[in-house]
Amino acid sequence: MRFKKNDKLVMIGDSITDCGRNRPVGEGIGDPYGKGYVSLVDGLLKTVYPELAIRVVNMGTSGNTVRDLAERWQKDVLDLKPDWLSVMIGTNDVWRQFDQPYIPESHVYPEEYEATLDELVAKTKMRVKGIVLMTPFYLEPNRSDPMRATMDRYGEIVKRVAERHGTVFVDTQAAFDEVLAHIYPAALAWDRVHPSMAGHATLARAFLQAVGFVWQ
Amino acid sequence: MRFKKNDKLVMIGDSITDCGRNRPVGEGIGDPYGKGYVSLVDGLLKTVYPELAIRVVNMGTSGNTVRDLAERWQKDVLDLKPDWLSVMIGTNDVWRQFDQPYIPESHVYPEEYEATLDELVAKTKMRVKGIVLMTPFYLEPNRSDPMRATMDRYGEIVKRVAERHGTVFVDTQAAFDEVLAHIYPAALAWDRVHPSMAGHATLARAFLQAVGFVWQ
Amino acid sequence: MRFKKNDKLVMIGDSITDCGRNRPVGEGIGDPYGKGYVSLVDGLLKTVYPELAIRVVNMGTSGNTVRDLAERWQKDVLDLKPDWLSVMIGTNDVWRQFDQPYIPESHVYPEEYEATLDELVAKTKMRVKGIVLMTPFYLEPNRSDPMRATMDRYGEIVKRVAERHGTVFVDTQAAFDEVLAHIYPAALAWDRVHPSMAGHATLARAFLQAVGFVWQ
Amino acid sequence: MRFKKNDKLVMIGDSITDCGRNRPVGEGIGDPYGKGYVSLVDGLLKTVYPELAIRVVNMGTSGNTVRDLAERWQKDVLDLKPDWLSVMIGTNDVWRQFDQPYIPESHVYPEEYEATLDELVAKTKMRVKGIVLMTPFYLEPNRSDPMRATMDRYGEIVKRVAERHGTVFVDTQAAFDEVLAHIYPAALAWDRVHPSMAGHATLARAFLQAVGFVWQ
Amino acid sequence: MRFKKNDKLVMIGDSITDCGRNRPVGEGIGDPYGKGYVSLVDGLLKTVYPELAIRVVNMGTSGNTVRDLAERWQKDVLDLKPDWLSVMIGTNDVWRQFDQPYIPESHVYPEEYEATLDELVAKTKMRVKGIVLMTPFYLEPNRSDPMRATMDRYGEIVKRVAERHGTVFVDTQAAFDEVLAHIYPAALAWDRVHPSMAGHATLARAFLQAVGFVWQ
Amino acid sequence: MRFKKNDKLVMIGDSITDCGRNRPVGEGIGDPYGKGYVSLVDGLLKTVYPELAIRVVNMGTSGNTVRDLAERWQKDVLDLKPDWLSVMIGTNDVWRQFDQPYIPESHVYPEEYEATLDELVAKTKMRVKGIVLMTPFYLEPNRSDPMRATMDRYGEIVKRVAERHGTVFVDTQAAFDEVLAHIYPAALAWDRVHPSMAGHATLARAFLQAVGFVWQ
Amino acid sequence: MRFKKNDKLVMIGDSITDCGRNRPVGEGIGDPYGKGYVSLVDGLLKTVYPELAIRVVNMGTSGNTVRDLAERWQKDVLDLKPDWLSVMIGTNDVWRQFDQPYIPESHVYPEEYEATLDELVAKTKMRVKGIVLMTPFYLEPNRSDPMRATMDRYGEIVKRVAERHGTVFVDTQAAFDEVLAHIYPAALAWDRVHPSMAGHATLARAFLQAVGFVWQ
Amino acid sequence: MRFKKNDKLVMIGDSITDCGRNRPVGEGIGDPYGKGYVSLVDGLLKTVYPELAIRVVNMGTSGNTVRDLAERWQKDVLDLKPDWLSVMIGTNDVWRQFDQPYIPESHVYPEEYEATLDELVAKTKMRVKGIVLMTPFYLEPNRSDPMRATMDRYGEIVKRVAERHGTVFVDTQAAFDEVLAHIYPAALAWDRVHPSMAGHATLARAFLQAVGFVWQ
Repeated sequence: MRFKKNDKLVMIGDSITDCGRNRPVGEGIGDPYGKGYVSLVDGLLKTVYPELAIRVVNMGTSGNTVRDLAERWQKDVLDLKPDWLSVMIGTNDVWRQFDQPYIPESHVYPEEYEATLDELVAKTKMRVKGIVLMTPFYLEPNRSDPMRATMDRYGEIVKRVAERHGTVFVDTQAAFDEVLAHIYPAALAWDRVHPSMAGHATLARAFLQAVGFVWQ
Repeated sequence: MRFKKNDKLVMIGDSITDCGRNRPVGEGIGDPYGKGYVSLVDGLLKTVYPELAIRVVNMGTSGNTVRDLAERWQKDVLDLKPDWLSVMIGTNDVWRQFDQPYIPESHVYPEEYEATLDELVAKTKMRVKGIVLMTPFYLEPNRSDPMRATMDRYGEIVKRVAERHGTVFVDTQAAFDEVLAHIYPAALAWDRVHPSMAGHATLARAFLQAVGFVWQ
Repeated sequence: MRFKKNDKLVMIGDSITDCGRNRPVGEGIGDPYGKGYVSLVDGLLKTVYPELAIRVVNMGTSGNTVRDLAERWQKDVLDLKPDWLSVMIGTNDVWRQFDQPYIPESHVYPEEYEATLDELVAKTKMRVKGIVLMTPFYLEPNRSDPMRATMDRYGEIVKRVAERHGTVFVDTQAAFDEVLAHIYPAALAWDRVHPSMAGHATLARAFLQAVGFVWQ
Repeated sequence: MRFKKNDKLVMIGDSITDCGRNRPVGEGIGDPYGKGYVSLVDGLLKTVYPELAIRVVNMGTSGNTVRDLAERWQKDVLDLKPDWLSVMIGTNDVWRQFDQPYIPESHVYPEEYEATLDELVAKTKMRVKGIVLMTPFYLEPNRSDPMRATMDRYGEIVKRVAERHGTVFVDTQAAFDEVLAHIYPAALAWDRVHPSMAGHATLARAFLQAVGFVWQ
Repeated sequence: MRFKKNDKLVMIGDSITDCGRNRPVGEGIGDPYGKGYVSLVDGLLKTVYPELAIRVVNMGTSGNTVRDLAERWQKDVLDLKPDWLSVMIGTNDVWRQFDQPYIPESHVYPEEYEATLDELVAKTKMRVKGIVLMTPFYLEPNRSDPMRATMDRYGEIVKRVAERHGTVFVDTQAAFDEVLAHIYPAALAWDRVHPSMAGHATLARAFLQAVGFVWQ
Repeated sequence: MRFKKNDKLVMIGDSITDCGRNRPVGEGIGDPYGKGYVSLVDGLLKTVYPELAIRVVNMGTSGNTVRDLAERWQKDVLDLKPDWLSVMIGTNDVWRQFDQPYIPESHVYPEEYEATLDELVAKTKMRVKGIVLMTPFYLEPNRSDPMRATMDRYGEIVKRVAERHGTVFVDTQAAFDEVLAHIYPAALAWDRVHPSMAGHATLARAFLQAVGFVWQ
Repeated sequence: MRFKKNDKLVMIGDSITDCGRNRPVGEGIGDPYGKGYVSLVDGLLKTVYPELAIRVVNMGTSGNTVRDLAERWQKDVLDLKPDWLSVMIGTNDVWRQFDQPYIPESHVYPEEYEATLDELVAKTKMRVKGIVLMTPFYLEPNRSDPMRATMDRYGEIVKRVAERHGTVFVDTQAAFDEVLAHIYPAALAWDRVHPSMAGHATLARAFLQAVGFVWQ
Repeated sequence: MRFKKNDKLVMIGDSITDCGRNRPVGEGIGDPYGKGYVSLVDGLLKTVYPELAIRVVNMGTSGNTVRDLAERWQKDVLDLKPDWLSVMIGTNDVWRQFDQPYIPESHVYPEEYEATLDELVAKTKMRVKGIVLMTPFYLEPNRSDPMRATMDRYGEIVKRVAERHGTVFVDTQAAFDEVLAHIYPAALAWDRVHPSMAGHATLARAFLQAVGFVWQ
């Protein structure tokens, strides 16, 4: 298990991370982690490793692309002084190219995506104990679907950045593909993007396995 | 793993099971399983065993005691023809004795509790592949607290009924006690009864381990 | 133009037809035809053929399958004494097989679909001036996608029923396929089922062309 | 067809254009074009000419007069760099003279109306491929009604400005007069100003015919 | 002044009378008479003739035609045992012919209107001290407008019934025509049917003058 | 009749004047004059003198004392350039002494009341055609009730200021006293301060009689 | 102290008792006793005599007169099997005579009031340990005010009934008169009927002193 | 009785004091003191000592710790110029250590608590007639419960500060302990922190007894 006692884990991303978290900072009273995989990660850590007292903070923001992350990185990541950081971004970078094809200023193309993500990791890695990079995903089993193919390309970028900087890497698309072999996308997400609790369980499990979590 | 392909699992209980499930039957479109442990059980089964196609149905109803379960048993359990059934009941049977001490007609005392639960299991066990009996719990680490002590007594009844009928047994209180050794109740539940997502993760894990679920 | 002065056109279907129509009968004050293709059909008829005084009635009901249509046929079609009738049904008959795979009682398979639709047309065609049968559709360009393939099979059933009874036939899937050659599904419908206004314009145009509407 | 591949069409006006569009800019996710003729124009363009990828932007604002357009012209028209621009304004310029006769500062009289509209067109026409000027209208068939007579006068001003600058001209009043020959105003608009979907279909058709749209 | 001490005055009609009155009976606590002319009649009677203690009851119901009045006459008029009764009905009888021209079953044509109104007056006049019949009206100054012309015809029917039975008669259209000579309809009512407070003041004054009310 | 063609009448006061008027200026679309006596004054002027085209503006603000009027006088009276001005203030100046006896900073005592009102009238009277000063009132028939006695004293101040400056004077308390001779306060106002429509009719009539309005 | 261990005290009345109590029975979870004197009585009993475990039930219903109590007496009093019963009724019996003077069927005059109250007490007194009769009250210090004078007469009736049957008697009007000697009614109740918390404290204290409660 | 005629009593604290008070200052119209013990204190003072005219002001703010009080002390205490001041603070200072154990910046530890409270009292005591210091409390009867033990330690600090400065001291925990000897916490407060009305009655009584209030 990579996390140590009292580690602070900041998880950043888009709406799939956000899920209605507390604002301005995603921790504290009520339902602070929202209703997605961050809440499951926190719950399973508290259940299985209560003695570790891991402090989870959800900093996802709906609609964000990597361009938006860069703008709020100082305030929403560095200022919070995390021990561990997870990043899952790219869905909107790709989606806008397909659901708003006529509005190019809303698209983030691969070059910008890779350069920005790389820069964020580069300037952060020396200030934390570890980083977990998670790929974006698309709940479409047909790999030749244009949006799926594009999303896969962004996932490869995440893998490349992870390898370049030696971070933990989580292939969420691969995790989902195992499920999609048995379950049609419409049963997992109305828009193939925002998963039901079953999809969030898939994300939480993929994340936890990557950091050495042992269920039993 | 005890569940087999296409098994139908009905989970019944009180508000801790309910959590805002679909009505009249807790399955189908939207967020059908509510926001508690049933949703986590379904999500983890879909994630790890997608090929099994387990059909989960949440039939919890807020405020219910075992007396209420008995009244709706035919319609909400037997008519649904489950392969597996889980029951977690007793919280309100005990709680009313402590938060409404002056209203004795709202209390369900141990004799009635045991007799009713026993009868429900007896008339159901031959019609299903298996039953999982889960104890009620109270998020109070002090075992000499009067309500905790009472809840423990009801938990023992559940254990006795489980043994008598050879059902699967889940000691949720024991699962929580491990967490409570490290985390104060106020961080898990505002009223020591309705847990946060972390508590629901504890319940889901206890349930899944009892039915042979393997995380990896 | 097939419609004559004072003809009454009843349009029945599921949520794609319904779109928030007036209840119990989809005509009258306010926004009686809802926000979908029925409203466009009515508006274009009033704009281009105001002298015909066509009376449009929207009888779509969200969530309906052909099984539901059969149940309300007497009250919602025959009792209204239409001159013309349009039917677009089948989306939910197919969709439930994919988004609720574990709930087979919610599925309507091809045999039941064809038999029911055929019977409805058979008992109605002598009581009206004409019937327009519209195929269901799925906004998925990949014809080997399982749900698209199934939907195509239901579209073929509609065509067969139309030919058998000599009704007007509208291939909505073909109309959408022309658009999907240029526009990715995510830009037309969040769930590949419920179209934006652009999709409703496609439906209205396909319907109107089939009944001899001349735009200029 | 006057529009070419990837043209950006900005449509500006008052509440009849606005109809609940996205803000601050009327494009993007959800129901960005509102529920009026702009949405129909976009939908029919996407249906019949999907290969052209026309980018429609709705910049109507409820309650606006030409005086208000002038104030926001830089930000809401020029800064958006349209290829094509449509303008339909004047309803409120006239209406306030009749529904608030005692508040003269809310009235925009013909001189100001013509001068302002002319200036806006003059400073824009060299920066776009084309402009479409649409008259305001009043759903009152009696041409000697004082408000109808005044509205007609403003329509003539629009025509004059269109001719002076060589823009496309759409006589919406003439389009409505054909419908009003058969349908009483109360069946088209509760206040003779804000049309039902049938009236918006009339507007969309008049606009599209003027720009060379071919339905078939 | 025709009303005597402790007289009970029931005022029945459609939405112009209703205006949000108390239900089921339009008197009592709160704002029992709604926000229209009935409230003004009551207020002016209390102000100028407080010693008379007239009991006003508003029994208007939005959307009613004379056909609807006949259905509820026993319960909403006769059972209340009024001393005086006022009736203003006909707006919807006419309006539906113009705003829902295609739905003839919603129209009440002159023959039915006259027969029904006559029968209601006939069976009531011996049971009350007096009846006040008020014409319906349309806030359209152009008498050759089709709906205005029709409304005038219904007003003549009211006059005929009043004369036949010797009731008090109030020509509300004539009262409004004096105002419309100076004020355009849009400043009095957005739909030419439901007046602003100024229109309700016109109605209240016309009614009060007919029953001998003296302002000073 | 003191008002002449096109006169602008601004009516200022507290909640009894306000009654939910439009903001920031109490005229224009919708229900601009609120639901009190200002609306009745406007309605009766439009009904009886439509040819005069009087422009009424309601500038009442709930909770105001004369101290508050002084603060907003420039913006809410002088800047609006009225021809006629009515002022009814003092209720809250007195009421706070009785419903918040322990909060003296909320009280406006007679000296401040008289000095402030006098100064406002003095600096305004040369800029308008006329001013109408209306007394505050209290719907308590017992003149020795402490709050009624105090309110009477403020009414005398209004009378003194009116006489000193030669304005029109309206004794609203006297007008109500005639009604209170027959009707108990609870039937006119739940708090003896905010009248029902009957009370507003009393106010409107008292105002209109003072400015020479003739009902017939 | 008259109440003994485990006594059940039912308190019935009108809106002053009701104050938003639980329904159908005013006890149990949440805020079961509403926000008035019943809640204070319960709270002070629990504070000072926690060992007595008095079960308080609030059965007040807004708007009730003694006529309404008689109708629901079996279900809302006798069926609940109280040990002690308190009754405070009469406000609406009197108030309707003053706020709805024209609706005599809503008035309950002294004869009916006394006869009904007497009969209710007579048929109940043998089935309970004790009854507390509380007078209605009116927060008007002027005893010659007509409604106060009437209310005093009803208070005398309550006293007479209490003496006739030997019940505990609470003169709430006398308790308020001591407060009204120092505080003007407007500071205690906006309508002289529904008191602020200070008024409810007066009621609770008067009740508790009558049953022998000792504060220290 | 320590309070004298016209004394102004400011009561400051956290959510237990706040209870929905008026803002920005907790006095005046409506329900200014909220629904907790401050309202009871005010009500009982008005009931028993109406001649004293004590002015109560509730300045509690939900969520506050002593650190928050220090920040708003000038504006919310000193600027209000109280004669008497009560302070009950510390619940959140302790609670955050238990319900948000991982967020240490939200905790206020004993040293800071004592220093801050002491400083606030020191700089205020010479400017008022008297100060009442109330301990925080926790509705947990088990004194070895970690949060209860901590709360007791903060209560001792309050006692020490009170003795050091010679203020009135109220041991609210002791008052509650008498009740908790008979009533289980779940019947008094869902979270053992925010009491029901019964708990607020306990607080009000403890406060009033400490200032010499005599009930009879």
